[in-house]
Parts: sequence; C-alpha cells; structure tokens
Amino acid sequence: MQMQMLAPILGVAGFIIAILIYTSIKSQSVGNDRMKEIAEAIHGGAMAFLNREYRVLAVFIMVVFGLIFISMGIQTALAFLGGALCSMLCGYIGMQAATHANVRTTEAARTTGQGAALMVAFNGGAVMGLSVASVGLIGVGIAYIFFGSDPATANYINGFAMGASSIALFARVGGGIYTKAADVGSDLVGKVEAGIPEDDPRNPGVIADNVGDCVGDTAGMGADIFESYVGSIIATIAIAATASALQLDILGGEAVRANAMLLPLVLAMAGLIFSLIGVGSMKFLKNINPAAALRYTTFVAAGGFLVASYFITKAMHINNGVFWAILAGTIAGITIGLITEYYTSAGPVTRIAEASKTGPATNIIHGLAVGLESTVAPILVICAGIFVANQVAGLYGIGIAAVGMLATVGVTMTVDAYGPIADNAGGISEMAGLGPEVRKITDGLDAIGNTTAAVGKGFAIGSAALTALALFSAYATAVGLESINLLNPMVVIGLLIGGALPFFIGALTMTSVGKAAGKMVDEIRRQFREIPGLLEGKPGVKPDSQTCVDISAKAALQEMILPGLVAVIAPVLVGFLLHKEALGGMLAGATLAGVLLALMMSNGGGAWDNAKKFIEKGELAGEKKGGDAHKAAVVGDTVGDPFKDTSGPAMNILIKLMSVVSLVIAPLLK
Amino acid sequence: MQMQMLAPILGVAGFIIAILIYTSIKSQSVGNDRMKEIAEAIHGGAMAFLNREYRVLAVFIMVVFGLIFISMGIQTALAFLGGALCSMLCGYIGMQAATHANVRTTEAARTTGQGAALMVAFNGGAVMGLSVASVGLIGVGIAYIFFGSDPATANYINGFAMGASSIALFARVGGGIYTKAADVGSDLVGKVEAGIPEDDPRNPGVIADNVGDCVGDTAGMGADIFESYVGSIIATIAIAATASALQLDILGGEAVRANAMLLPLVLAMAGLIFSLIGVGSMKFLKNINPAAALRYTTFVAAGGFLVASYFITKAMHINNGVFWAILAGTIAGITIGLITEYYTSAGPVTRIAEASKTGPATNIIHGLAVGLESTVAPILVICAGIFVANQVAGLYGIGIAAVGMLATVGVTMTVDAYGPIADNAGGISEMAGLGPEVRKITDGLDAIGNTTAAVGKGFAIGSAALTALALFSAYATAVGLESINLLNPMVVIGLLIGGALPFFIGALTMTSVGKAAGKMVDEIRRQFREIPGLLEGKPGVKPDSQTCVDISAKAALQEMILPGLVAVIAPVLVGFLLHKEALGGMLAGATLAGVLLALMMSNGGGAWDNAKKFIEKGELAGEKKGGDAHKAAVVGDTVGDPFKDTSGPAMNILIKLMSVVSLVIAPLLK
Repeated sequence: MQMQMLAPILGVAGFIIAILIYTSIKSQSVGNDRMKEIAEAIHGGAMAFLNREYRVLAVFIMVVFGLIFISMGIQTALAFLGGALCSMLCGYIGMQAATHANVRTTEAARTTGQGAALMVAFNGGAVMGLSVASVGLIGVGIAYIFFGSDPATANYINGFAMGASSIALFARVGGGIYTKAADVGSDLVGKVEAGIPEDDPRNPGVIADNVGDCVGDTAGMGADIFESYVGSIIATIAIAATASALQLDILGGEAVRANAMLLPLVLAMAGLIFSLIGVGSMKFLKNINPAAALRYTTFVAAGGFLVASYFITKAMHINNGVFWAILAGTIAGITIGLITEYYTSAGPVTRIAEASKTGPATNIIHGLAVGLESTVAPILVICAGIFVANQVAGLYGIGIAAVGMLATVGVTMTVDAYGPIADNAGGISEMAGLGPEVRKITDGLDAIGNTTAAVGKGFAIGSAALTALALFSAYATAVGLESINLLNPMVVIGLLIGGALPFFIGALTMTSVGKAAGKMVDEIRRQFREIPGLLEGKPGVKPDSQTCVDISAKAALQEMILPGLVAVIAPVLVGFLLHKEALGGMLAGATLAGVLLALMMSNGGGAWDNAKKFIEKGELAGEKKGGDAHKAAVVGDTVGDPFKDTSGPAMNILIKLMSVVSLVIAPLLK
Repeated sequence: MQMQMLAPILGVAGFIIAILIYTSIKSQSVGNDRMKEIAEAIHGGAMAFLNREYRVLAVFIMVVFGLIFISMGIQTALAFLGGALCSMLCGYIGMQAATHANVRTTEAARTTGQGAALMVAFNGGAVMGLSVASVGLIGVGIAYIFFGSDPATANYINGFAMGASSIALFARVGGGIYTKAADVGSDLVGKVEAGIPEDDPRNPGVIADNVGDCVGDTAGMGADIFESYVGSIIATIAIAATASALQLDILGGEAVRANAMLLPLVLAMAGLIFSLIGVGSMKFLKNINPAAALRYTTFVAAGGFLVASYFITKAMHINNGVFWAILAGTIAGITIGLITEYYTSAGPVTRIAEASKTGPATNIIHGLAVGLESTVAPILVICAGIFVANQVAGLYGIGIAAVGMLATVGVTMTVDAYGPIADNAGGISEMAGLGPEVRKITDGLDAIGNTTAAVGKGFAIGSAALTALALFSAYATAVGLESINLLNPMVVIGLLIGGALPFFIGALTMTSVGKAAGKMVDEIRRQFREIPGLLEGKPGVKPDSQTCVDISAKAALQEMILPGLVAVIAPVLVGFLLHKEALGGMLAGATLAGVLLALMMSNGGGAWDNAKKFIEKGELAGEKKGGDAHKAAVVGDTVGDPFKDTSGPAMNILIKLMSVVSLVIAPLLK
C-alpha cells in the first residue's frame, strides 16, 4: 500500500476518537435546572447562528463553485467544495462540543473539583482540535490520492485550500463581529453605566456575549487554524510539484520530487499521531497545576513529532536540511507565542495600567504604543525562521517550516479551544448563581485560558505568515515567474494596493463592530429602562436575551459579506488587470501589512484586556475596581476587543485567502 | 552663463525677499504690555528650545560628518554638512518669523481687522515658505555646480539630501514630542479635570503648548518639506545621472542626459518664481474670504508653474512625456490633499461625533476605523500617479512627478506655516484677555489653519511617498541592481524588517509623548494644588510656566535620539549584513508601512480633532460642550494628538531618511 493511502485512514481514526470524546462529554451531568436552561440558551443561540451563517455561505459556495468550474474545470471546483465542506464540518462539530462542554465544566467544578473541570474543558477543546487535524488529513489525503501522484495535476489540490480559506474568512469575520458586538455592548451598559458585574443574569446581552465566545473563539479560530494547516501542506506540495532543478538539487535531486511532494502529508500524519498522544497525556497531567498541564500536553506532542520528523526525512531520502527547516518552524512558532505572552503580561501591561491613572486617553496612547512595539520581535523571529529555512532547503524550506509549525495542530488547537469553554463555564456559574467557590475554580481555568488564547493568537499569526509566504512562493512558481521585481513600477503599484487592503478590511470590521455594539447598547439601555424591576434584580423578572442574540447575529451575517468579497475579488482583479507580476507584489504587500496589523491589534488588545484585569485584581498601587483608573482601563479593554478578536484575526485569513486565490487562478494567468 | 549658475542667484534673490518680509513684520506693533509679555514668553521658549536642539544636533552632525568623511570622502561629507546647515537655517528663520508674527497678527486683529490679521499671519508663513524654497535652491544649486556637470561625481550631491533628512527627523520627532506633551498634558488637567477653557492663562502648560505649536508645526513641518523638496530634486538628478540606455531612450536618447539632470533644478527655479508671484498675490486677495484667498495663492503658483514647465521641457528637448509626469505629480498631490480634507471633515467626522454618544470607547473605535479607511484612496491616487509617470517617462518620471508636486513649495509651505501662527494668535488673544471680538477673528483664521494643516499633511505624505520611491529607484541604479526580486528570501526578510521599522518608530514616539504628557499632568496638577489662588484666578497669581516648558524640552531632546539613530543606522546595518538587495527590500517595506501608518495616523488624528470641534460648535443634535459626548470626544482628540503631530509626521521623514542614507552608502555596497 502506498504511503498516501494511510493519510485518510489515519484521519478517519482520529476523527472517530474525536467523536468518542464528544459522546463521553455528552454523557456527563449538566447540573441543575437553571444551569441547564442557561446552557440551552447558549447552545441554541450558537447553533442557530451557525445554521444561518452556513446558509449564507451555501450561496457563496455555489456561486464560486460555478465560477471555478467554468474557468478552471471540475477537479479544482470539487476540491474547492471539499475544502469548504470540511471546514464547515469542523466548525459544526467543534461548536457542538464546546456548547455541551461548557456547562459540564461548571458542573464538574461544582461537584468534583478543579481537576475534573479541567478535564471536561480540555476534552471539549480536544473535539475541535482533533477534528481539525483529522478532517484536514482526510481531505488533503483524498485530494492527494486523486491528483497528487502526478505533478501536472497536483495543482487541482489548491482548490481544497481555497475552499477552506473562503469559509475561514467568513467564519472569522462573522464570528468576530458577533462576539464583539455582544461583548462591547453588554460591557458598556452593564459594567460601565449600570455598574453590575460581568455575566450578571440581569444583563440582556450576557447570553449573546457567551454565544459570541463560542462563535468567535471556537468556530472562528478553528476555521483559521484549519486553513493554515491545509494551506501550509498544500503550498508545500505545490512548491515541490513545480520545483526548479536548482531547488530539487538542494533537496536531493529530481529523484526525490515525489517524496518531497509526499513529505508534508507524512509529517501531518506523524503530527496527528503525536497530537493524540499529547491529548491523551492530559489524563495523567490533569491533577497538577492546570497551566503546566496544558503546556506539557503540547510539549509532549511537539517533542515526539520533532524526533519522528528527523527519522522520516532520513527514511524518505530527503536532504537532511529539511529537518532543520522543520525545527526552525517549530521553534519560531513557540518563540512568537512566548513573545505574545510577554506583551500581554509583564512590563507592557503594567505600563498601560500605570497610564490609566491619568485617564482613558493616556491608557489608549500607551496601549497603541505597546501594540505597535509588539510587532518588532515577532517579525525578527519570522525573518530568522525564513533565513534558516531558506539556507537549508530553499523555498521548499519555508513551506515545510510552516508544516512543522502546524503539524501538531491537533493538540495546539485543543488548547486554543479550551479557552472559550472555560470562559463560558465561568459565565454559566455566575448566571446560575453558584457562589464564589465554584466561580473561583472556573475563574482559575478562565485565567489560564486567557494566556493560552494570547499565545494561540501569536501562533496563529506566525503560522499564517509562513503559510502565506509559502503560498506566495507556490504562486510564483505556478505562474512561471522567476522574478517579482520591485524596480518594476507595476510591482510597486501591486505592493501599495496589497498593503492598503488589510487597512481597508480593518476599517470595515472595526466599523461593523462599532455600529453593531451601538445598536446593542441602545437595546440594553431600552430594556433596563422599559422592563420594570430588571435592573433591581426582582425575582422572576428576566431580560429579553433573544433580541440581543438577534442583533449580533444579523450584524455579523450582514457585515461579513463585504470583507469576504474584497478578499476573494481583489487578487482576481489585480491579476487580470495588472498582470501576474503586479499580483505578486500585491501578495507581498498584503502579507507584510496584514502580519504587522494582526500583531499590533492582537497584542495591543490582549495587553489592554490584561491591564484592566491587573487593576481589578488590585495589583496597581492605590487603585481598585470601580475607581477612575479602572474606568479608564475598561475603555482601553473595550477598544481592544474588536482589535484582538475581530480585525486582528481577520488579517491572518485575508493574507492566506488572497494568496490561495492567486494560486488557484495561476494557470489562467500563466 | 550656464543655466545652473542661475539657481543660487535666484535662490539668493528669493531669500532676500523672505528677509525683507521678515523685517516688515518686525516693524509692526506688538500691542499692549500683556501681549508683549506673553509673546516674549513664547518667543523665548521656542528659541531656547531650538538652541538646545541644535546643540544636540551639532554633536550628531560632527560624528556623522566624520564617518562620511572616512568612508565616502570629503565631497559627500561637505554636502552633508551643507544640507544639515541649510535645514537648520530655514528652521531658525522660520521660527523667528513665526514667533514675531503671532502677536502682531493678534494686534492687527485688535486694531485693524480680519484682512490685516490674515496678511500678517500669511507673511509670517511666507518667511518660512520662501526660505525653504530659496535656501534649498541655493544649496542644491551650488552642489550641482560643483559636482553635477559630471555624472561620475553627481553622487556627491546625495550627501546634501542626507544632511537635510537627518535634521528633519530630529526636528520632526523632537518638535512633535515637545508640542504634544504640552498639548496633551495641559488639556488633560485644564480642560478635562479643572474645566477651564483652552489657552486659559491660569493653566501652567499653556505657554509650553503655544511654544510647541511653533516648534512642531513650524520648524518640524519646515524641515520635513525642505527635505522632500531637496530629496526629490536630488533623487531625480541621481536617476538621470545613472540612467540606463533604455531609460534614456524614453527621454530622448543619450544626448539629453545632461538636460535630464538639469531639469529638476530648472523646474525648482520656475517653481520659486511662481511661488513669489503666488505669495505676492495675497496683497490683492487678502480682503476676500480668507480660506479662498489662501487657496488662490497656491492655484496661481501651481497654474503658472505648469504652463512654464510645458515650455521648459520643450526648450530642453526632453520627451514631451516628462511634462505629463509633472502634471500627474501635481494632480496627485492636490487630490491627496482633497481626500485628507474629506476625511477630516464631512461624513467621517460626523460618524466619530455620533459614536461619542456611547462613550470614549466607541469614539476611539470609530476614529481608528476612519484612520484605517482613509489610507485606501490616497494609496490608489499614488498608484495612479506612479502608473502615469512610469508610462510616459519610466523611473525618471516618478522622480520628476515628485519634483512637480514640490516645485511650488514656496507657497504651499507658506500656507502650512500660516496655520500655527494663526493658532498662536488665538492663544495670545485668549491669554491677554482681549475679549470675544478679537477672539472671533483669530478663531476664524485658526479654523482655516486647521483645514490647511490637514491638507498640508496629506500633501506632505504624498510627496514623501513619491520622493521615497524616487530615492529608492536612485538607490537601485546607484548600487547597480537590475532587480530586487521578491522571490529571493533575503528580499522578503528585508521587506519584513523594513515594514516593522515604522511600527517601531511609532511605538517609540507614542510612548515618549505618553510619558512626557504624564509628567506634564503631574506638574500642572501640583501647581493647581500648591499655588494658592491659581485655579481661582486671583489677580496677580501666576503659574510657573517655565517648569512646564522645561519638561517638554527635556523630554523632546531625550526622546528624539533613539528614533533618529534607528533611522540612520538600520539601513547601514541591513546593507552591510544582508547586502544590497535585502536593503532594497527593506526600503520598499518601510515605504509601504510608513506611508500607510502616516496616512492612518494623520487622518485619524485630524478626524478626532474635528469631531470634538463639531460637538463644541453644537452641531451634534442633543449634545453640547461639557456633556458626556463632548468628554468622550476630548479623549479621542487627545489620542489623536500624538497620532497626527508626532508619530504620523515622523513616518514621512523616516522613509525618506532611510532611502537617502542608502543612496549615500550606495558606492560602498556596489
């Protein structure tokens, strides 16, 4: 049996394990009636949104399917369809798991304790994590079996990445707008104006806020990482399939082309196996410090994977340098995560907290400064990664470095998806009035989730950057360009247009959140005004949460369209009007500006968030919750919300999507 | 007599006219004792700062002079010295004129009326405007006479641009930190906490704020535009001097090389002549609507210049296409100015004002969105400019388009420098208690100044972008690169590092303003607390303004060093460590990210400022000055201050300075 046959088989096995974990979660107790009721509201809201979102996407998919079919043929169109469906499937399953695991985490915290609660939340995340890795492997594996054996047909696989990317942009942008409209709106009226705590059941926006965490942080993040994962594999296959003689010489000569094409798939298989081991190791780790436990699961997987990849490259007779590229990618990914952790904790956060003493304006100025500054170190790390990967294995090295970064996605995504579940668990315990004991456990798990979310975001940006560069190289070879010359003014024009696009998408998404949050504020204010006894907390008086859920959902579905279309259409327009070299310039410009903005927004947003928490915990001398400095910090946090959860993450996908669209239309531009 | 001999002669004539205008201003009355006292405090503070700044710069200049002398020879070192001294001379004279014209504008408003006041403020600006154009022409002219006749020695002239650029960065950054530390600090305590009006004499920071307007908006802007002006001329000379046969074919063959080198200088001469005519036309325009009068002076100059340039290119036997490139540059400059005007007025401003109703957080979110969005249209205009210029005249066209944009700098800079004088005049009338009649006139002139400042900033960014691209092309030809290939990973590394640099400089400058403003807040709070009767306005009780002036000055001088050094050292490091092609990538990345950030920051900042004014004027239904929406808008304005007056403008110079440093070290990298 050929090696590639193993990929979908292994994928199916992984997926079955994910489903088993899911059923084991569902079999656990959901707690008392109040908890059940809240959990059902969140679950219902989240699934209803997903259904509506997928209905909109169905139209988009059919149109694009038709366009690809006409222009590129049925193979690419089918691959596109497959990529889109796989991404949607992951989102669907991950969301089901998350909205069932949240309340069961609360219940485990209430009845058993921290270790058990950690296990439920982690398993909830594992369903998403393992689904992403397994479904990705099934999809890419099947596409490879059909088209991969021949370099001439390998380009059909690119459609799969485009399908995954398209869904990702809508999911990320829609989810991001949903979650932040709800979050910003409920905080502004609830926390700032009415002075009631976060997640207070009186606040009509709280259910929408908790739904938003699932929609944005679970489904959105899952689609983002899914896309990077399949994108990096496919870009590397494409680079190998179209590699020049010079490139092949570096790898070991023309004889290794087939193996070089196969390698990303084999690495993904190894990554899945070690992810399963990593996820499984939580059983033994759950009773140590939860933060350490989460970290160790990823270390177990990454360590095992690196050792395996050393022997895999050897066994496949590929130049040893490729292993060093994989190592470089993994180290770069971890380092960027650590840098993100630094900027969203430690000195920068204290600086912003201190600046809050002189009011919201200085808080914002320092927060923006932290965001701007935080771009520098990750960029240098990415440069170092590119340098090493290229030195040891040429352009192929850059692709394989991205694959190395993402191969153990099964476990890294698990840790990412754990965060919103822990966050939700805290919300449910607050809304159900379970008391400080339970809240303390869920708060502890949530705090770790904030750190893992920050690190995960850094990792997502780093992997998006490398994936985009790999796709960029794949585009250039696919389109037959030997040079994209910056001294050609058309390339400079492309570069400038590309650079402006992330700013444009950033503007669109920020405006969307601002508008939707404004509507949410008006509605929550109205309810507090018009529903007698609501704000006073009279027993039996309930807010109308459904209207708030609707506001977020409608805004998200409307406002995700334009950014999505821009990202798909821009490369097509530039490619056909200004030609292939200018399009290359555009991809470079978009990648540069997109990565910079993503880093600035996500780190700045995280730092603002934690500066607020820093003051809330009483760690800023002379200041406490509810004081002027805290109020200033809440303003910063609110500005940071769409930065880190809407606009920033949209950048990752924008740059990948534009690169992959260019790669798909490459045969037409050649 | 050769044509180039005329350049310094004409420059000297222009400079004499500037001096005559200056003496005519000084001969006018300064008003009553209180006005005189205030004016002397501002004048003294401004000149004292300039002296201290120049002392710091003297050290820098000597060190860099030594380094250039050792590595590049005495000719480049002397040219560098000349450029630095010329820039400092312009700053010195412009500042003298501004700090004498401000109080005389107030006095003219008090005794004569709007027309007379407009004339004084305009003339004050004209001293700066004409000095920049004349001194630039003298300097470049002399350098050209010595080195320009021979393409082999023409590269020595580049040192002149580097001298001008180095001074510009320090002046812009230092001035920007000075002015915004004072502005933010006095607003936060005075307007927000104590509830006293802007420019109230009780506020200890008001003198520093007014000094800052001169230091930042006059000296800083002058140095910025001076640099673009000489930079564009020198880049175009350099492109012509090293032009390939292909490029020369477009222009009219090898025979026109000498004329192509001379053309930028001739255009600058024509520009100066028409600037003088434009400035002179104010005599006849002063009594119409002041906004229209200011606009017409620039139209007169630009129109005349364009007609002349048509005949000049014809007479010099240069391909007709070059004229179209000049036209494209001029139109692009005007269009970018108009776009800036749109984003800092009209719809975007109303949007931000509306968002202020839901608090400072939504105000900031919408302001950031406006800033992000405002990058798109100017970038497209720049792309169109590049496209046309390149189509009709190749790379040389891009350089000459920048020259066309900047040739009438004598009058555009006059209008720019008018702004801070009118602003100061208003401050003086408030501090001297001259009553609402006078204040109304000065407010009217100031309001126009805000518009001209916004347009001027857009123009400065547009011209910086084209100048940087011209310098970039000059660098590439000087260093002998035929391609800067984005498929070479070293170029991508350069691109990424270059892109991160503007973010880094933005972070440094924002942090500096934040820190210095914090110190200013503490000091003003202390004075209000410790000086009995100050806040109550007891007669005879005066604030200690000098301490506030010192805080700003010290912060500015300290904090300008690091950004300045980064900008000078980065290209040298990258050039020698990663080599000339990576340095090309870095320049492209820095130009892209720098232009985008400059547009975002300066337009966002302007829009915030005007949203606040919109509410103050009572134009937002249901809201008035001092209400919650207004308070939210003041937060936005305060965040926008360092955006538009410190970090944003620093970008312009950063990208030009890095390009010009690269151009100067080109012979070493070849």
